[in-house]
Amino acid sequence: MSTRLGDLVESLGGELIGDPDIAITGIAPLEAASASHITFLSNPRLRSGAAQTRASALILSAKDHSEIGGAYTGAVVLTDNPYAYYARVAQFFAERSAPPPKPGIHPSAVIDASAKIAATAVIGPNVTIDAGVVIGEHCIIGAGCVIGKSASLGEGTVLHPNVSFLADCHIGARGVIQSGAVIGGDGFGFANDKGRWIKIPQTGGVRLGDDVEIGANTTIDRGALDDTVIGNGVKLDNQIQIAHNCVIGENTAMAGCVGVAGSAKIGRNCTFGGAAMVLGHLSIADNVHISSGSLVSRSIAEPGQYTGFYPLAKNADWEKTAAVVRQLDTMRDRIRELEKIVRQLTDKNSSSS
Amino acid sequence: MSTRLGDLVESLGGELIGDPDIAITGIAPLEAASASHITFLSNPRLRSGAAQTRASALILSAKDHSEIGGAYTGAVVLTDNPYAYYARVAQFFAERSAPPPKPGIHPSAVIDASAKIAATAVIGPNVTIDAGVVIGEHCIIGAGCVIGKSASLGEGTVLHPNVSFLADCHIGARGVIQSGAVIGGDGFGFANDKGRWIKIPQTGGVRLGDDVEIGANTTIDRGALDDTVIGNGVKLDNQIQIAHNCVIGENTAMAGCVGVAGSAKIGRNCTFGGAAMVLGHLSIADNVHISSGSLVSRSIAEPGQYTGFYPLAKNADWEKTAAVVRQLDTMRDRIRELEKIVRQLTDKNSSSS
Amino acid sequence: MSTRLGDLVESLGGELIGDPDIAITGIAPLEAASASHITFLSNPRLRSGAAQTRASALILSAKDHSEIGGAYTGAVVLTDNPYAYYARVAQFFAERSAPPPKPGIHPSAVIDASAKIAATAVIGPNVTIDAGVVIGEHCIIGAGCVIGKSASLGEGTVLHPNVSFLADCHIGARGVIQSGAVIGGDGFGFANDKGRWIKIPQTGGVRLGDDVEIGANTTIDRGALDDTVIGNGVKLDNQIQIAHNCVIGENTAMAGCVGVAGSAKIGRNCTFGGAAMVLGHLSIADNVHISSGSLVSRSIAEPGQYTGFYPLAKNADWEKTAAVVRQLDTMRDRIRELEKIVRQLTDKNSSSS
Repeated sequence: MSTRLGDLVESLGGELIGDPDIAITGIAPLEAASASHITFLSNPRLRSGAAQTRASALILSAKDHSEIGGAYTGAVVLTDNPYAYYARVAQFFAERSAPPPKPGIHPSAVIDASAKIAATAVIGPNVTIDAGVVIGEHCIIGAGCVIGKSASLGEGTVLHPNVSFLADCHIGARGVIQSGAVIGGDGFGFANDKGRWIKIPQTGGVRLGDDVEIGANTTIDRGALDDTVIGNGVKLDNQIQIAHNCVIGENTAMAGCVGVAGSAKIGRNCTFGGAAMVLGHLSIADNVHISSGSLVSRSIAEPGQYTGFYPLAKNADWEKTAAVVRQLDTMRDRIRELEKIVRQLTDKNSSSS
Repeated sequence: MSTRLGDLVESLGGELIGDPDIAITGIAPLEAASASHITFLSNPRLRSGAAQTRASALILSAKDHSEIGGAYTGAVVLTDNPYAYYARVAQFFAERSAPPPKPGIHPSAVIDASAKIAATAVIGPNVTIDAGVVIGEHCIIGAGCVIGKSASLGEGTVLHPNVSFLADCHIGARGVIQSGAVIGGDGFGFANDKGRWIKIPQTGGVRLGDDVEIGANTTIDRGALDDTVIGNGVKLDNQIQIAHNCVIGENTAMAGCVGVAGSAKIGRNCTFGGAAMVLGHLSIADNVHISSGSLVSRSIAEPGQYTGFYPLAKNADWEKTAAVVRQLDTMRDRIRELEKIVRQLTDKNSSSS
Repeated sequence: MSTRLGDLVESLGGELIGDPDIAITGIAPLEAASASHITFLSNPRLRSGAAQTRASALILSAKDHSEIGGAYTGAVVLTDNPYAYYARVAQFFAERSAPPPKPGIHPSAVIDASAKIAATAVIGPNVTIDAGVVIGEHCIIGAGCVIGKSASLGEGTVLHPNVSFLADCHIGARGVIQSGAVIGGDGFGFANDKGRWIKIPQTGGVRLGDDVEIGANTTIDRGALDDTVIGNGVKLDNQIQIAHNCVIGENTAMAGCVGVAGSAKIGRNCTFGGAAMVLGHLSIADNVHISSGSLVSRSIAEPGQYTGFYPLAKNADWEKTAAVVRQLDTMRDRIRELEKIVRQLTDKNSSSS
């Protein structure tokens, strides 16, 4: 099933230069594209590849277009952000090739009589939905999901199979939760009483905004008294742990294996590399970027990129440098001592000359 | 539904000074509390907040009470450990506001005829219980849980939805396992034979003591021949990995994303910060505290706090220091060389003067 | 149920010296073994223990056999690789003690009419199998698993309970996937458009080879356009994250909590210690070994062992060295300055003497 290039551009925006009647069947990378594809150039270093692609249409910026000139002879779509345009074209074709499943509730699903399920929602096999749950229009609940008491899902939100979305958790519209994620496990709260741990009941919930995506096997704990809050447009990759009472600002994105300890407040439009860690009760400003494998042990007030990991080396070399790391404070003292002696020697020398 | 303050203190202990007939509906933090609440002061720095709270009753230590004096005019409950008392009061109200579900087995649950389920247990929808399983009184098994052959759960243990509690695993009384946890996956045991890995069957089980809590998506592997053992009162947060044949001592607590490699022996009353890692076959003494993001690569015999992570910096600064880390051994050699030369210069200077 | 030692060796190979009629009931470690056991010596340092074991038969190398000589009086089985032989003996007895479940489909399983399930496969309770799925001979699908559209499993592959094996994912023969694993979650792909994230549809699949084992709660994302590829014989432990479009070579093994970012290409016969991390778009050669807790931030072309983690210390000592780490570049400058001054002093001294 193909789409007229003119129709595609009319639907997604951008400026078309070339034949609007070209039939496009999908999007592919520069080298892999064939004549029925549209492709894109988002990295100026790939300009020569763009000139040689077999694709019938090319998404690119005005600047790249003028640089490439006549070297590419197909149709072009001009846009400020070719990579984002690629994403939208890919969405366009993905929706056409995989039409959504038919609305309805699978007979094996167990649904409390008090739950409100929109007529356009899809509830898969072996799903459990508890009392007072509200499922919005066009939601899709994958097989094996469990939705706890009084939870709610906004319009168009998708839970992939085997998600646990527990009591008093709420997500807005157009959310996506990948398989195995757990939203609303108890926060890790215990008071120590002479060595024994007394559990502090976790009675808050989790509130996720609109357009949030949560990765596979990621966990977001419910708050102790207040809610844990995930802002609109936040994207979390797989295997992430968000502890109780964290607040994450809009459009912040975290790569896999990140951990955020309790009550951390993270700003908007931040990014976290894989396995970055944030200690509890910290504040991180908007537009902060944490590198992979880095541990944030203090609040960060200033936007920018922050890093802290031990550089990789051959094991034998690491052993040598790690041995010195253990003595760094004495090494600094030796330098101070050297500086003192050298100063004395210099003074002596100048006075004696 | 409110509780008489006098009844609360009679039930939980502590010394009440004030009107026992005050009606309490719940517990709240100092600033958030209203007149129907009890609140607590566990941090002496918040004394001024305690004096100003609107709560009708205040849990605090005798020392804080004498410091605050008449500045707070409500009832007070004196206790050695206000934070632990808060936990108990919160439990008291949480139990009242959320009565346990009614005993019984949901018709969609699949239960082997040889399993023994206590009459007071609650078995949720779409649960699977295999042969020879024993479920104690007042246990609650959430929707979608799978309990493997010959596993057993002690009295009052709760499995939240979608837990996998596999064959030959055992947990004591009053345990809590959060959603997505896997108890009894195979340990990671393979023998290398000319490049190929030969699986070593993992035929041990997992034994968890009483009062254990396991976090969401945490995994505890079964032992190779012997069992993996988790002591009484151990608390594990989310996303933790405990490998085969580990032994964890009583009341040890681990924050999220911790990993413990095979056959590590960890003492009692230890704490592990988030994402701490422990290598295999190590021993860690009682009362050891490992900071977040720190890797334990040798056994630890002495109690205390241990740390090892690269300090975070602005990325440009990190790049400079990381470049030097790679040369630390040559830097040490240069210092030695300097010390030698400076010694010679000093000697020469003293002999020449 | 016991096995004749002669039959065991005939089945598994190796050279038997001693009575083939000894009855063996299982395998146990040197000290734990009783007269009905076979045991093994894989570490030469345990030779004295081997001499004293009560086991009736001992697996060892020819070299250890000649060293031990008559000190051990039972039967011996000579082999080049006693540890791999142990693994095979353990498999032999494990298969006998736990015969596979009877083929068949549990009535509670929900199976699309278009799925092809081999007659010898076992499909557990509350399983969901979608359209077009192919399940090979002797596969075992644990309770609560969900298998997505057009996925396929090769002969003898086992999914433990609660695995999500999603659409267009494929695994070869003799695979094992532990509970809670998610194969085929969406890769983490978003294009940023003026602060908002636009999802890039993830339309590739996951291809896992033969003899692959995937640990509990491990996640492997589907590719963006092409597939994510896991080679034959790869073994992944628990809580691992493999991002979209990674390619992992044959027989590579990763311990728990490892993370691999998108499009990384990892060679054959590599090993990764626990919590090692690999950044995206890197290439790692064959036979590379990454230590626990180490972050790989550049491609590695040369085989060998690589390490990079901050050494653990008492917290007070760490605080001292970490403070110096932050000033390492100025410290290097101070050394350079010292060297300059000392050179001048030395020159002056030699010229003046």
